[in-house]
Amino acid sequence: MRQGFPEVIFGQGKTAAQIARIAQAIYAQGAAVLVTRVSPEKAAEVKRLMPQLAHEPEARCLSAPAKQPPPPGKGKVAVVAAGTSDLPVALEAVLTAELMGSKVERVFDVGVSGLHRLLAAADVLRSASCFVVVAGMEGALPSVVAGLVDRPVVAVPTSIGYGAAFGGLAALLGMLNSCAPGLSVVNIDNGFGGGYLAGMIDHLG
Amino acid sequence: MRQGFPEVIFGQGKTAAQIARIAQAIYAQGAAVLVTRVSPEKAAEVKRLMPQLAHEPEARCLSAPAKQPPPPGKGKVAVVAAGTSDLPVALEAVLTAELMGSKVERVFDVGVSGLHRLLAAADVLRSASCFVVVAGMEGALPSVVAGLVDRPVVAVPTSIGYGAAFGGLAALLGMLNSCAPGLSVVNIDNGFGGGYLAGMIDHLG
Amino acid sequence: MRQGFPEVIFGQGKTAAQIARIAQAIYAQGAAVLVTRVSPEKAAEVKRLMPQLAHEPEARCLSAPAKQPPPPGKGKVAVVAAGTSDLPVALEAVLTAELMGSKVERVFDVGVSGLHRLLAAADVLRSASCFVVVAGMEGALPSVVAGLVDRPVVAVPTSIGYGAAFGGLAALLGMLNSCAPGLSVVNIDNGFGGGYLAGMIDHLG
Amino acid sequence: MRQGFPEVIFGQGKTAAQIARIAQAIYAQGAAVLVTRVSPEKAAEVKRLMPQLAHEPEARCLSAPAKQPPPPGKGKVAVVAAGTSDLPVALEAVLTAELMGSKVERVFDVGVSGLHRLLAAADVLRSASCFVVVAGMEGALPSVVAGLVDRPVVAVPTSIGYGAAFGGLAALLGMLNSCAPGLSVVNIDNGFGGGYLAGMIDHLG
Amino acid sequence: MRQGFPEVIFGQGKTAAQIARIAQAIYAQGAAVLVTRVSPEKAAEVKRLMPQLAHEPEARCLSAPAKQPPPPGKGKVAVVAAGTSDLPVALEAVLTAELMGSKVERVFDVGVSGLHRLLAAADVLRSASCFVVVAGMEGALPSVVAGLVDRPVVAVPTSIGYGAAFGGLAALLGMLNSCAPGLSVVNIDNGFGGGYLAGMIDHLG
Amino acid sequence: MRQGFPEVIFGQGKTAAQIARIAQAIYAQGAAVLVTRVSPEKAAEVKRLMPQLAHEPEARCLSAPAKQPPPPGKGKVAVVAAGTSDLPVALEAVLTAELMGSKVERVFDVGVSGLHRLLAAADVLRSASCFVVVAGMEGALPSVVAGLVDRPVVAVPTSIGYGAAFGGLAALLGMLNSCAPGLSVVNIDNGFGGGYLAGMIDHLG
Amino acid sequence: MRQGFPEVIFGQGKTAAQIARIAQAIYAQGAAVLVTRVSPEKAAEVKRLMPQLAHEPEARCLSAPAKQPPPPGKGKVAVVAAGTSDLPVALEAVLTAELMGSKVERVFDVGVSGLHRLLAAADVLRSASCFVVVAGMEGALPSVVAGLVDRPVVAVPTSIGYGAAFGGLAALLGMLNSCAPGLSVVNIDNGFGGGYLAGMIDHLG
Amino acid sequence: MRQGFPEVIFGQGKTAAQIARIAQAIYAQGAAVLVTRVSPEKAAEVKRLMPQLAHEPEARCLSAPAKQPPPPGKGKVAVVAAGTSDLPVALEAVLTAELMGSKVERVFDVGVSGLHRLLAAADVLRSASCFVVVAGMEGALPSVVAGLVDRPVVAVPTSIGYGAAFGGLAALLGMLNSCAPGLSVVNIDNGFGGGYLAGMIDHLG
Ligand SMILES: Nc1ncnc2c1ncn2[C@@H]1O[C@H](COP(=O)(O)O)[C@@H](O)[C@H]1O
Ligand SMILES: Nc1ncnc2c1ncn2[C@@H]1O[C@H](COP(=O)(O)O)[C@@H](O)[C@H]1O
Ligand SMILES: Nc1ncnc2c1ncn2[C@@H]1O[C@H](COP(=O)(O)O)[C@@H](O)[C@H]1O
Ligand SMILES: Nc1ncnc2c1ncn2[C@@H]1O[C@H](COP(=O)(O)O)[C@@H](O)[C@H]1O
Ligand SMILES: [Mg+2]
Ligand SMILES: [Mg+2]
Ligand SMILES: [Mg+2]
Ligand SMILES: [Mg+2]
Ligand SMILES: [Mg+2]
Ligand SMILES: [Mg+2]
Ligand SMILES: [Mg+2]
Ligand SMILES: [Mg+2]
Repeated sequence: MRQGFPEVIFGQGKTAAQIARIAQAIYAQGAAVLVTRVSPEKAAEVKRLMPQLAHEPEARCLSAPAKQPPPPGKGKVAVVAAGTSDLPVALEAVLTAELMGSKVERVFDVGVSGLHRLLAAADVLRSASCFVVVAGMEGALPSVVAGLVDRPVVAVPTSIGYGAAFGGLAALLGMLNSCAPGLSVVNIDNGFGGGYLAGMIDHLG
Repeated sequence: MRQGFPEVIFGQGKTAAQIARIAQAIYAQGAAVLVTRVSPEKAAEVKRLMPQLAHEPEARCLSAPAKQPPPPGKGKVAVVAAGTSDLPVALEAVLTAELMGSKVERVFDVGVSGLHRLLAAADVLRSASCFVVVAGMEGALPSVVAGLVDRPVVAVPTSIGYGAAFGGLAALLGMLNSCAPGLSVVNIDNGFGGGYLAGMIDHLG
Repeated sequence: MRQGFPEVIFGQGKTAAQIARIAQAIYAQGAAVLVTRVSPEKAAEVKRLMPQLAHEPEARCLSAPAKQPPPPGKGKVAVVAAGTSDLPVALEAVLTAELMGSKVERVFDVGVSGLHRLLAAADVLRSASCFVVVAGMEGALPSVVAGLVDRPVVAVPTSIGYGAAFGGLAALLGMLNSCAPGLSVVNIDNGFGGGYLAGMIDHLG
Repeated sequence: MRQGFPEVIFGQGKTAAQIARIAQAIYAQGAAVLVTRVSPEKAAEVKRLMPQLAHEPEARCLSAPAKQPPPPGKGKVAVVAAGTSDLPVALEAVLTAELMGSKVERVFDVGVSGLHRLLAAADVLRSASCFVVVAGMEGALPSVVAGLVDRPVVAVPTSIGYGAAFGGLAALLGMLNSCAPGLSVVNIDNGFGGGYLAGMIDHLG
Repeated sequence: MRQGFPEVIFGQGKTAAQIARIAQAIYAQGAAVLVTRVSPEKAAEVKRLMPQLAHEPEARCLSAPAKQPPPPGKGKVAVVAAGTSDLPVALEAVLTAELMGSKVERVFDVGVSGLHRLLAAADVLRSASCFVVVAGMEGALPSVVAGLVDRPVVAVPTSIGYGAAFGGLAALLGMLNSCAPGLSVVNIDNGFGGGYLAGMIDHLG
Repeated sequence: MRQGFPEVIFGQGKTAAQIARIAQAIYAQGAAVLVTRVSPEKAAEVKRLMPQLAHEPEARCLSAPAKQPPPPGKGKVAVVAAGTSDLPVALEAVLTAELMGSKVERVFDVGVSGLHRLLAAADVLRSASCFVVVAGMEGALPSVVAGLVDRPVVAVPTSIGYGAAFGGLAALLGMLNSCAPGLSVVNIDNGFGGGYLAGMIDHLG
Repeated sequence: MRQGFPEVIFGQGKTAAQIARIAQAIYAQGAAVLVTRVSPEKAAEVKRLMPQLAHEPEARCLSAPAKQPPPPGKGKVAVVAAGTSDLPVALEAVLTAELMGSKVERVFDVGVSGLHRLLAAADVLRSASCFVVVAGMEGALPSVVAGLVDRPVVAVPTSIGYGAAFGGLAALLGMLNSCAPGLSVVNIDNGFGGGYLAGMIDHLG
Repeated sequence: MRQGFPEVIFGQGKTAAQIARIAQAIYAQGAAVLVTRVSPEKAAEVKRLMPQLAHEPEARCLSAPAKQPPPPGKGKVAVVAAGTSDLPVALEAVLTAELMGSKVERVFDVGVSGLHRLLAAADVLRSASCFVVVAGMEGALPSVVAGLVDRPVVAVPTSIGYGAAFGGLAALLGMLNSCAPGLSVVNIDNGFGGGYLAGMIDHLG
């Protein structure tokens, strides 16, 4: 139904055999396959059962493109992240949007407590048609980005942090309370959800 | 800066005089003005100070269009709501998107515990390019809508409910945990935020 | 006292020896025995001590029927579940109701973000006298089912999910806030509780 | 559709005019009407607009029976409550089940910190086919009742209490964690929901 | 200072060497020593370093009496518990009060969903001067006991349970909201605290 | 049954007529009557209906002694409080213990951020046999007192505070986590519960 | 003891007479007096009783300087705030630091979703020796400021916001999770606490 | 930029290789390096890759001083802690402030339930210009210290505790609600943040 849109398999809590079976069913229909949250060991096992899948260890994902290449996006999706600990979630978003046919720009290692790096990336920011902004702990980055641009910002809180981060709750609440219009939020650590919505917006019109 | 996009004033907790002063400054620049969360009494007081503002009591809003009519949207925004108690929030979203130049379709009085009404509206749903779905209590409606369409769904939880609704928390959590991709969430009762993001998406491309 | 009703042993946190000892005491009285939440390893150990118990690994249960077969139920219990991750909880409910003498219909792999599969099962739904509906994450399924039928719906939230699922809290709150009358809720992951109540209702009259 | 089952209007937050308009539409179809959570003042206003409604101030309800008397229940519903502060919620449950055609027994002023009164009512308890048990603060009553009987117990937590009662949260959690099988829970203060489910169970078979 | 009162060492998170060093310092002063929350392995290691300590595996405790036997209590402390899972906490309370010189009566395996066993123990209950009542999950037992007796009841919530038990929070809130006067509460799983306060009360006068 | 112990009526949420009716029934049996949480207006109304009641406006209580004077306590109860805002709760405890026949010492206006005043009261502290310690905000006072004395300390958290006091939750948690043995906790603002338990302990032996 | 440091009276929940009595006692000792959280009506009443107090309605404060002017600070305190709704809290901080003898710079109407205004104030920011940064809703401002400066930043969350702001909780958590070192946090709406700590730091050395 | 201030690497969740790479980059610039939250095993691995780092196992830290010795502080920082379980966090604060050039006084093993030890350290307390006070469980120590001194107190809650400690939440809330002015709070277990702020204040002027 959803042409060119990947079907996702949440890999955590599933066995390699379960994953391979579901992935093969999707693959057989010609759709793009994306498996998220797979450990290196489980990924290797799944690949043994289904060698067509490519493994991106940093994104913790396995994937295969659709039989038919998806239509290209209208513009460019920017995926923005502050800390290196957030990269797995950010790269899950990157991979998702790319599977959907979108061009993706990575803007990593920019954080609100070092604004100069973010401001230095301003040109890149202005060239994108849609944003996925990934942040843990206090979760202020999406709000600052949304204040700099006039395009949709999909905020992805991460569970990175300790103490009063409460597993991503602090970041989630911060993003929901942003004063910057054009910003919306998906579930904690939901890089797939952020990338999917950005890819969908990038294909509208 | 944001051409054709309204500047919003959160009316709650501000005096009529404060509202009128800020509204006039925005108006003087030719931008669209939107004041949300104003009681009928306060609205009347503000209008006495600034008669150019129109009052929509059901949306609890005051507004004035931009001097230059905004560019029209690319498609159509659908604002969907279940209960009559959610209407003020839904109408705030409607008004916001309309001020931005979008065509808006209202799909009201459809709920997950009476699916037939929602399914009867399926044609309307399929014709829209972007959705704002407003729901309180359990907050399941956005998820069901997102399962029926392949367009961005902006979910707006409301504070309507009692007991374990916890002022909109139950609806908020339900929406954040939706399995339907393409769905993102704004703050509880943030009809403006939902309408703004939908209007923005409707103007992309 | 409760004729034909199984006595339950919560297996988690108990040793195989403890489980076998309690199970044998119940068995000696002729009552049905049900042990929930047992890992495959512990199940094997318990069976070595008490070979009369049958092991259902997917339901994570050990059980033995009552000496006297229980009186049959008046109608049919339907156990409904959306995701494959929820199946252990759903199967615990199935097993419980079956031990009580009820006929049980399984309606699995139906979810609110893919309504067509649920609607396709409408006939089955209408034929049951009582429902157990199991769901994690957003937990919207029981509400949708309760909107389609006029029979008691026992909603069982599961701890499946991540991030803002908060270990089943989101699903629990969603179910408690349902607008559909006839729906009530048991504890997170309490498949036994759901199956027991449904079996009890199915034996009334 | 739901024959003999009342349509409910949540009166809180609606004007007398809104209530009367919805109530008249239901009444015109011959269905039973139930309006919950109406203050004495609002009730008087609604009655002026729609004199067919009867007012029960203690239950905070307005109601009118269905045109056709509902089929009688199969047994008897017992509504049990501890404190006088819980009576409005308990009476809402009583009224709901009676509108559905059930015989209802009131077992009031029995509490877990004075077991003798509850035990004295044991005969009445044993004669009912279904229970609605209403309690605030610690919420232990439903669990104790469910331990005494072998019939479905619908537990209704109330918001009565102070301090760590947290608006009914303590009672709600207590009920969800009951060890007594056959017990399920509805939303805080949801007397209607408890009475409706009990009435529905009483009409099965 | 506190004559005859044991000094406690919270064993969890401490190494055997740390525990032995602190225990020996207390022992050298002639005071009673109590180490709580020690695993069997750690207990064995500590005993190798300090053979004077006695190990009670079910209570998860190591202990040594004071050099001078403590003065006897004035009456009798009753330690009451419902489930077998709560026994480690209950036995920690027993051991603490006994080290202080109190006579302790165990009233185990009595629960609110099977009142007859509790009522059968009524004579024992009436003979005690102070109560420690231990319960997990819904935590209703202390309230029921306090309704049966006119002596101080120290309620100890446990972390036993799952789902909406939230690690003992449900039991804690239930106990804090009890309507039975004479009841007070200590921290979740704090068997030592319950036994200590009961032993202290038993030595007053 | 409970000789010399007052029967309490929680006045909040009850009408003057309801209060007077219940109070008269208790009074007729010769027991002590205590009504808590009554506003000055309601107190006046109740007194008009039942002039035997005495009003203590600072404690927000109405009361009448038992027909038979209660037996005197064994020692002395000390009620300790830090802020003037906590006085209504502290005085409710004072009144309760006095109605039970205990001698009560007031130790007010001592706080942990001004230790000298507390240390200055050390003699008084040492002379009491039981303590009620009332505190809001951070709730540290009971822990400090319990460190200074070797007698039971009943901690009463109050809802006094703002922001992260969360209606008494911060004080409640602080008290439950105290390292000082001999300390137990009652519900937020439950001055009656604190005074009752202290009075009960003071009458043991 | 604390020379030149004001004594604070939390005005909320106290009567005008109580406030005046405490304020006069402080004033008589020659210390600076500060009363926070007073409504205009109560302020007028207090002033009638104690005309020496000055009223700052926007800060919701009454105050009188110490008899001896306090020693001047070593540098300059900057009080930074984003929204107009946060001004009462910010001005409470300003007034507190000024009463202590500090020079205070106001940097108002700068917010993270409009970074240019904050960056434009960079010179002022760099000239201060200590910062009080006040913000509600998402609470990201202190973190951004702390990233721009190398001086202590006292973050003051406010209760401004709605929905998932949860009365200042979102802002509080955001600030506690800031990655910017040099930042610490006081209670929600505690402008006094922020100003006091900044004034204290400004007087060190 | 921040001269003499260490750059911190949060070691938890990073591999030894990642840590060594980032540490070497900082070291190459001549800045002080601090790695927090490293297990003994990981520390050994990192040291193999970068032998210049010193390991303090009790503080769970690796560090290297700046090339240029930092300017000395103006006074003395006191780091105060109650329990031995809090020492890792307290020592992280000590190490941080020392790396910044501050003299640090350790005041360990002082707790609110044994005031005499704290009062015995009063002279040391009075000699410091800034305080870091570390406490878990009830978290009352910072408040008591702040009441004894007139200098800034940075409160560091720890996750030490069980049951209603909720991973440091109880301590955090207690500290935020302290009545003692001059006190501010950093994140749970954030010894680095406490030491850094104290070191910064100690270098002002
Ligand atoms: N400069 C920054 N601004 C905002 N957040 C940051 C910054 N640096 C790191 N973070 C967040 O801190 C957490 C840990 O980052 P890292 O240690 O770099 O992996 C992540 O959730 C980041 O999003
Ligand atoms: N059929 C329905 N399905 C889902 N939510 C509903 C439904 N009807 C009402 N609601 C929600 O229940 C709350 C009260 O609705 P109402 O009384 O119609 O204003 C609102 O938050 C609605 O979104
Ligand atoms: N009959 C009962 N009444 C109340 N609580 C019970 C009862 N039986 C068990 N529990 C509680 O349920 C939990 C598990 O019990 P068990 O499986 O017997 O170890 C414990 O926290 C018990 O306190
Ligand atoms: N010195 C103190 N130490 C601890 N808590 C205090 C102190 N002073 C006041 N409080 C608490 O702060 C709150 C307000 O106090 P007050 O303004 O004096 O009524 C009350 O809950 C008190 O318990
Ligand atoms: Mg923007
Ligand atoms: Mg969709
Ligand atoms: Mg139904
Ligand atoms: Mg039962
Ligand atoms: Mg009692
Ligand atoms: Mg003590
Ligand atoms: Mg800085
Ligand atoms: Mg101080």
